[in-house]
Amino acid sequence: MLVVQKYGGTSVGDLDRIRRVARRCLAARAAGHDVVVVVSAMAGETNRLLALTRQIHPSPEEREQDVVVATGEQVSVGLLALAIQAAGGKAVSLLGHQVKIVTDSSFSRARIQSIDADRISAALGRGEIAVVAGFQGTDERGNVTTLGRGGSDTTAVALAAALRADSCEIYTDVDGVYTADPNVCPAARKLDRISYEEMLELASQGAKVLQIRSVEFAMKYRVPLWVKSSFGDDPGTLVCEEDSAMEDVLVSGIASDRNEAKIALRSVPDVPGVAAKIFTPLAEAGVVVDMIVQNVSQEGHTDLTFTVGRGDLGKAASVIRAAAGPLGVKGIETDDQVAKVSVVGVGMRNHSGVASKMFQVLAAEGINVLMISTSEIKISCVVHEKYTELAVRALHTAFGLDRASRGAAIAQAG
Amino acid sequence: MLVVQKYGGTSVGDLDRIRRVARRCLAARAAGHDVVVVVSAMAGETNRLLALTRQIHPSPEEREQDVVVATGEQVSVGLLALAIQAAGGKAVSLLGHQVKIVTDSSFSRARIQSIDADRISAALGRGEIAVVAGFQGTDERGNVTTLGRGGSDTTAVALAAALRADSCEIYTDVDGVYTADPNVCPAARKLDRISYEEMLELASQGAKVLQIRSVEFAMKYRVPLWVKSSFGDDPGTLVCEEDSAMEDVLVSGIASDRNEAKIALRSVPDVPGVAAKIFTPLAEAGVVVDMIVQNVSQEGHTDLTFTVGRGDLGKAASVIRAAAGPLGVKGIETDDQVAKVSVVGVGMRNHSGVASKMFQVLAAEGINVLMISTSEIKISCVVHEKYTELAVRALHTAFGLDRASRGAAIAQAG
Repeated sequence: MLVVQKYGGTSVGDLDRIRRVARRCLAARAAGHDVVVVVSAMAGETNRLLALTRQIHPSPEEREQDVVVATGEQVSVGLLALAIQAAGGKAVSLLGHQVKIVTDSSFSRARIQSIDADRISAALGRGEIAVVAGFQGTDERGNVTTLGRGGSDTTAVALAAALRADSCEIYTDVDGVYTADPNVCPAARKLDRISYEEMLELASQGAKVLQIRSVEFAMKYRVPLWVKSSFGDDPGTLVCEEDSAMEDVLVSGIASDRNEAKIALRSVPDVPGVAAKIFTPLAEAGVVVDMIVQNVSQEGHTDLTFTVGRGDLGKAASVIRAAAGPLGVKGIETDDQVAKVSVVGVGMRNHSGVASKMFQVLAAEGINVLMISTSEIKISCVVHEKYTELAVRALHTAFGLDRASRGAAIAQAG
Repeated sequence: MLVVQKYGGTSVGDLDRIRRVARRCLAARAAGHDVVVVVSAMAGETNRLLALTRQIHPSPEEREQDVVVATGEQVSVGLLALAIQAAGGKAVSLLGHQVKIVTDSSFSRARIQSIDADRISAALGRGEIAVVAGFQGTDERGNVTTLGRGGSDTTAVALAAALRADSCEIYTDVDGVYTADPNVCPAARKLDRISYEEMLELASQGAKVLQIRSVEFAMKYRVPLWVKSSFGDDPGTLVCEEDSAMEDVLVSGIASDRNEAKIALRSVPDVPGVAAKIFTPLAEAGVVVDMIVQNVSQEGHTDLTFTVGRGDLGKAASVIRAAAGPLGVKGIETDDQVAKVSVVGVGMRNHSGVASKMFQVLAAEGINVLMISTSEIKISCVVHEKYTELAVRALHTAFGLDRASRGAAIAQAG
């Protein structure tokens, strides 16, 4: 069996922890597996290096920043290979340009285009554990690139896909994916399995556990992905393809996201092309718009409301103010005290009634719904930020997700 | 004009010093030159990284050690490129594998085999300052290699040779090459010029200023090499080809080396093949033998004395004890309290009398000469270690090298 393991910065945070990771790799090898291990920079190292670049240049060129920051993973792989050797094993470190993890040239947020797995396969053939630097790649001209925060997850999944690995294990400081953020909802329960699609929709929670792009990659190449704790022996959560058992579960998890701000445009002329004139300049300014809601037209005018990341609110508002005048928009209101609460589950595909139940639960708690957006497996409501915890906990209970009560949610509605 | 500048770890020891180096590079650029700058790791960084590898493995594999240690230079080039950009210049960092500084696979002490200067030339063509990582290379299979302590000097000289640079400037924390180590001989004087050959013979002093291999490289490819201070504007010392003016100077400098130990073999049978039976096992044990002296044979036996690095004495003695018995050697004496003092000068080629003068000076100071060895441009004497400073100072004065008295040494003997 070929296993790809990935250890984050906390798991290799000091030399003792690196030794512990070495023992885990050797245990997998002793169990008869071929082992590829991907590591991040030691905890704090990436931030230390980023701070250096910012001290020397107020807005450092991303090419050079990547050169500096990529050294964090280079140190980790060398030290882990040595730790495995010190424990009696065989290991070789491999860097992004050595594995030929070829990316585009979008420095600091590069996307993997191809991987040449030959060198790893050769190492495995010699009985070595291949210790691969996460987060880093090389573009076609040989420049050092990095994949963005959490990029080591994507490195691991991409390697697993390229090597046709039997499994990809992401070791982190939590023991799996939960039905809700345990900090928000104490009754949250660890999931044994979750589908790729649900994992993506649980993004706002999941982003802390897995880089979103790594999940997209795993889904695209059908790589079974385990999320496990590097400090215990819990089997963790398996992120995998949807199966019939999952469809019996109506709601898999509740996500919440406070990084939201709302912009409402009052009395927008309801003529073709208006929306384009509003959202095109936003896109050009690099503002990512999340939800968009347009009300029914009244007397040739409508209200248009949308949400953006809270950090983009100022930029978005000034873009909109510049565009709104010529369009004849009557008023612009902004609100940075909103949050998005979502229920997620592939079971929704075959069951109705989830949305109405969600609205009932929120209404019963006196929570006003400001915006609604739905997808095939998700219903999101924007509410005042102060209701976030209350909404998550009430929905978690109502959909039967509270600890030791999972059975209750199965095919409950519909 | 194409200039290669090299800055050592002290010169880039913190962010302010990196900014100062950036200004020096930009000044050279403003003077109309194409500039290639080679940098070492920030002072202390290489030792910090080496310590990490030794904490994780008692005798770390050199391949992995090189992976870890090479990150020091990678951080430096990124930060210096950003510092140049912050000061309004154009710069790009280049790593060993990007410049294609191809070396053999002798990890931790690799030798440069070839350099592909195209990428640097392209950067210069775009008006950029090329900031190249010193000390590091890549072998033919793409492994990270390092060139050994002081290897950045060799990187700079090799680049200067490959680019046919007009000059190669080594910036360090001293302002040039001296007639003797100023710490040993307060009257030592900075040299304006010195030949490659003399620089090599002054190794024990020069090694602190220039890596020996960089001088060999400069001599082989006839690269004019400047040794300058990165903290002042002193023109420094030019290391270059021998010319007639140099030959007029009898002695250019006095070198001393305390890293010496002496082994004397008493009553060695004087038959063919004996020397080979003694020195072959030493070579196989990795012991570098420096001087060898054999006395005139008496009654079929002779005395054989040689020196090794002090750290190798224990190993050398045990190798010799194992070999001496079968050969019939009567006695083995070791002495780790010796030092080598040398007078160096290309002028010796055309003048006699230097050796006798050296012996007279030492005798007048009551210093017993234990061993003598000569080359075309050097005479070395092994003396008791306690006489090192006395010998250096007396010779320095006798050969007219003391400050403000250079003229006295010209064609004084012969």
